[in-house]
Amino acid sequence: MRLLEELIEKLQWLPGIGRKSALRLAFYLQKMDEAKVKELAGTIVRARTSLKECIICHNLTETNPCPICTDKSRVQDRICVVEQPSDVMIIERIGEYRGLYHILHGVISPINNMGPKDLRIDSLLKRVSQNKIDEVIIATNPTTDGDITAVYIAKLLKPLNIKITRIARGLPTGSDIEFADKITIAKALEGRQEI
Amino acid sequence: MRLLEELIEKLQWLPGIGRKSALRLAFYLQKMDEAKVKELAGTIVRARTSLKECIICHNLTETNPCPICTDKSRVQDRICVVEQPSDVMIIERIGEYRGLYHILHGVISPINNMGPKDLRIDSLLKRVSQNKIDEVIIATNPTTDGDITAVYIAKLLKPLNIKITRIARGLPTGSDIEFADKITIAKALEGRQEI
Repeated sequence: MRLLEELIEKLQWLPGIGRKSALRLAFYLQKMDEAKVKELAGTIVRARTSLKECIICHNLTETNPCPICTDKSRVQDRICVVEQPSDVMIIERIGEYRGLYHILHGVISPINNMGPKDLRIDSLLKRVSQNKIDEVIIATNPTTDGDITAVYIAKLLKPLNIKITRIARGLPTGSDIEFADKITIAKALEGRQEI
Repeated sequence: MRLLEELIEKLQWLPGIGRKSALRLAFYLQKMDEAKVKELAGTIVRARTSLKECIICHNLTETNPCPICTDKSRVQDRICVVEQPSDVMIIERIGEYRGLYHILHGVISPINNMGPKDLRIDSLLKRVSQNKIDEVIIATNPTTDGDITAVYIAKLLKPLNIKITRIARGLPTGSDIEFADKITIAKALEGRQEI
């Protein structure tokens, strides 16, 4: 059982996995096909060792620059700024956006000891000033930190005289005004558009 | 990103991990120390390849028979029957029980297509008849399936003329009668003991 205890300990390194979940995972792994377990473990290691930051957009990639940055069929003069690589994945799944990305790897957050220097902001400024960029869409999360980061980046980009936009705020599609919070309703009214 | 997508897919093989959790885990793994990721993956594989069923009690073990079965300081004439190896781990953590175990690896459950033949019942009967066993404690879960399995095993053990007990049912310590369900209260009254 010592090896099992060791596995249960180590599974708890993962986020959101407490002792009970670790126990469940550990025993589930024992019932899984051995080849599948090896495949999963192998992919975990392979992903960790071969994924690097793209030198242009800072997304995680196996090839450098990444497939999005080198895809000439994409709109080349539009950059969507996001907090995390996972945001790119989510936006790409929707399939509506055809421009480029820039991943900050975080937001300005004094509480988490994250300042502008910890983010990929310098390379964004360089990228925008050295390339023919028409629009920068700031898609950081609609949180206090995300908003502060958006304003901070917008100020730095202002002198470059390009279009800077922020993703829209309002009521989520399919939701109910009755259950929305005050700020969301206020933002939805503020951002109203003619129909 | 293709490797990342592959990792996200494979993480979803695990129980309770949907696409969102897999995404979170995958990106967390990228931020983790590479050596730690390799250690975790290595332990997963090592546990899966080297843990086997103990030939006596059917617990998962690296050595055969397992450390509990070979521990001569334990009470040798008492066997606690449980559903899963995880139950042994939980009971051992409490440290009150000093006897041996027998792991069924499931319960009789027609809905899950599990019959007595799928459980380690035959080896329990053999074990009890071939050794000097004083008491068998049936600690399957207090569920319908667990109860049915307990009754089934008790019937088979009856001719061997040993003490057969079932773990007690009642109100959990620290709980409130007000919030207990009818069956639990009924069982608590039924199992009342003199003080």
